Amino acid sequence: MSELAPVLDALDSNLDKSLERLFDLLRIKSISTDPAFKPDCRKAAEWLVADLKTIGFDASLRDTPGHPMVVAHHDGPDASAPHVLFYGHYDVQPVDPLELWENDPFAPAVKDLGNGRKVLTGRGTSDDKGQLMTFVEACRAYKAVHGKLPVRVTLLFEGEEESGSPSLKPFLEAHKDELKADFALVCDTGMWDPQTPAISVGLRGLVGEEIVVKAADRDLHSGFFGGAAANPIRILARVLADIHDENGRVTIPGFYEGVEETPTQILQMWEGLGRTAESFLGPIGLSEPSGEKGRSVLELTWARPTAEFNGITGGYTGEGFKTVIAAQASAKVSFRLVHKQDPAKIREAFRAFVRERIPADCSVEFHEHGGSPAIQLSYDSPLLAKAKDALSDEWPKPAVLIAMGGSIPIVGDFQNMLGMESLLVGFGLEDDRIHSPNEKYELNSFHKGQRSWARILDALAK
Amino acid sequence: MSELAPVLDALDSNLDKSLERLFDLLRIKSISTDPAFKPDCRKAAEWLVADLKTIGFDASLRDTPGHPMVVAHHDGPDASAPHVLFYGHYDVQPVDPLELWENDPFAPAVKDLGNGRKVLTGRGTSDDKGQLMTFVEACRAYKAVHGKLPVRVTLLFEGEEESGSPSLKPFLEAHKDELKADFALVCDTGMWDPQTPAISVGLRGLVGEEIVVKAADRDLHSGFFGGAAANPIRILARVLADIHDENGRVTIPGFYEGVEETPTQILQMWEGLGRTAESFLGPIGLSEPSGEKGRSVLELTWARPTAEFNGITGGYTGEGFKTVIAAQASAKVSFRLVHKQDPAKIREAFRAFVRERIPADCSVEFHEHGGSPAIQLSYDSPLLAKAKDALSDEWPKPAVLIAMGGSIPIVGDFQNMLGMESLLVGFGLEDDRIHSPNEKYELNSFHKGQRSWARILDALAK
Repeated sequence: MSELAPVLDALDSNLDKSLERLFDLLRIKSISTDPAFKPDCRKAAEWLVADLKTIGFDASLRDTPGHPMVVAHHDGPDASAPHVLFYGHYDVQPVDPLELWENDPFAPAVKDLGNGRKVLTGRGTSDDKGQLMTFVEACRAYKAVHGKLPVRVTLLFEGEEESGSPSLKPFLEAHKDELKADFALVCDTGMWDPQTPAISVGLRGLVGEEIVVKAADRDLHSGFFGGAAANPIRILARVLADIHDENGRVTIPGFYEGVEETPTQILQMWEGLGRTAESFLGPIGLSEPSGEKGRSVLELTWARPTAEFNGITGGYTGEGFKTVIAAQASAKVSFRLVHKQDPAKIREAFRAFVRERIPADCSVEFHEHGGSPAIQLSYDSPLLAKAKDALSDEWPKPAVLIAMGGSIPIVGDFQNMLGMESLLVGFGLEDDRIHSPNEKYELNSFHKGQRSWARILDALAK
Repeated sequence: MSELAPVLDALDSNLDKSLERLFDLLRIKSISTDPAFKPDCRKAAEWLVADLKTIGFDASLRDTPGHPMVVAHHDGPDASAPHVLFYGHYDVQPVDPLELWENDPFAPAVKDLGNGRKVLTGRGTSDDKGQLMTFVEACRAYKAVHGKLPVRVTLLFEGEEESGSPSLKPFLEAHKDELKADFALVCDTGMWDPQTPAISVGLRGLVGEEIVVKAADRDLHSGFFGGAAANPIRILARVLADIHDENGRVTIPGFYEGVEETPTQILQMWEGLGRTAESFLGPIGLSEPSGEKGRSVLELTWARPTAEFNGITGGYTGEGFKTVIAAQASAKVSFRLVHKQDPAKIREAFRAFVRERIPADCSVEFHEHGGSPAIQLSYDSPLLAKAKDALSDEWPKPAVLIAMGGSIPIVGDFQNMLGMESLLVGFGLEDDRIHSPNEKYELNSFHKGQRSWARILDALAK
């Protein structure tokens, strides 16, 4: 602990300055999914490069066909030190509906909620700028105190995580040698609860699809043509309604191929975590799990695949009423995958399922929006044990091993392309409202997150 | 014919001037369904009042809680002359999607299509400013030539026809004595084909509803909550998909109450008109009737009720993808009614049908958007015979008696509140693209429409 204690002290002393730096980054509107914010994404990447150089990283911005990557390197204390690749993303989700935000999403602030609890408000505080900066601050403090880092560190920050990471695979492929490390650290996940840190060992995969149903070659008057002309909203509603049966199961043929039943032992461990339908859904105003009947909410969100409808639009959606039959209607559909489900097969099965339901005189277009398989990491690596202990030292309760409902495609890419396992540690909380209005990040997460990474880096060096 | 011939000559001579007047009215953006255009609606009403005064009408603008009415009176030649109430509407449909218009929708123009065919382009040319001005121009010419009108005329122009006419019934109720006439003339319908004028004796009714399905109290991340939290788009899709069975019939209990089978004689008459699925749907890029199986397109659009989905929206609908589960999703739904279907009962039956399909922890809101029963006028009145002959004199082919798929609620209100039948004569064509981008009106419709009204007024006086 001799090297660690002064680093933790430095992190405590410099918390205000680290907040100033984070807020500078948060003010940049790096919404990757909307082309209007392309310059802002570049600006965020440039900010990171400049900041990393002040720590002593060999940092550079790397252009891609989309938003740029940030890559930075720092030597370890000697040639025998482990080499870690740390990954985060500087892009953020769109902010609509803007009117539901209590504060400007790009004017971050510290909000005192009383009882000693403070939160950082704004888009990207939790997903993922606040999280990635916990690691950067840990490196900064270590370097300032000891003039070196305890392990060799490569950083990779991407700007397209919220829009399907189209440039990531080609970039990894082209820079395998530069990016390959002993293992990856990924900070884009959450705590189990405010006292209990968590390491994620399972992640659901994702297939994103947009479908556009086209009927007549123009918008029609529903009085004149209604009853005779095909209505694309009706066709689309039928397609979407057919995707689930009465028991919440997905009906697409072959959808459950590769899905395994979760071992009883694991289900029991999860049961011990005490998450019920009431405790999980109550805070968002719901009570009944909507997925496959007879399974717990943890199993539904961690170990079962889903079909979700993320957006739908067609016809007149403004104020008042317009008696129109639209020429087309579209929906954004995503599938969460588990275990060995194959994204390409799921996509094809879905498309066939849709095509079967399109009348002969209508048509459908498909647009692909990313795809990645699920990930299952090993429960028993030495890496995991070190990280678990380090986290347990920092937080009030011992770290737990969990699974995740969301997708972090990079973890699969690291595994498949660079042959590295990932350690998934993050400090977000369930109520952080990521992807929603009023996103926040606990000040405690930001502060103890920095200290956690310092402890993990120290442990890895041993 | 002594009084008529010089009036027809005057209409021919003054066609250019009548076009200038119409274009002045068309330039006013009187979109009633969007509150942003409220001042424009008033401006259109004021324009009409001013124009009618130049003819010698006692014209005035009448305020309502919505857009104003225009009412104008002109004496007949003597106390024994018939009294007609002419109805039209000066409001127009929204113009979105604007990018699909070839010309500015509010910069009307005459477009020469070659082969001697010219059309007037712009929003409202056919629905309904162009049509109502055919009657005004006929009155103007008659007055100019003879210094009087052949019958007593009251005009009623409303500004809320495209938004459900919320102010109309209260206005009729409050002005019964002023507006009651022997019968009404309504110019908001179409020709059978470019050579054949038509009188509409059946009109479908309308019930408009907007439903908003609400699930969680915020937008959710579909990775974190997907599989557990209710998705309002999924619920809405299920509701909409359940409304039709495999044979295109509406499944809402009680929906077909009051619907009568059309007499074989009428169906045969319609068959003689030669409209097939191919001829009706081919021009809009479709081929298969989407309504109840085993019925002709004329029966489906004229004599059968429908459920149509006019708009749907929910979740992320911008560019790219957002893995969100929306807090709510909504749809605009309309029903076309026939015969004795009761709008209030249909609305209640629909709402009950929807409520049954909303999970216990979700909710639904309903917004009413107008309702009117269907109309069936008598086939054998003397009025109809006179109008039929007058129209047959003007056009290349004799007038035919048809039904209409659209709703003109005013016709029911005239019948129920003022005890008047209506004569429905109009000069629109199927390809006028009313309610769609690139609305047009044939110059021929505008010109011969004026002449047709002059003939009808002359015939009614005899």
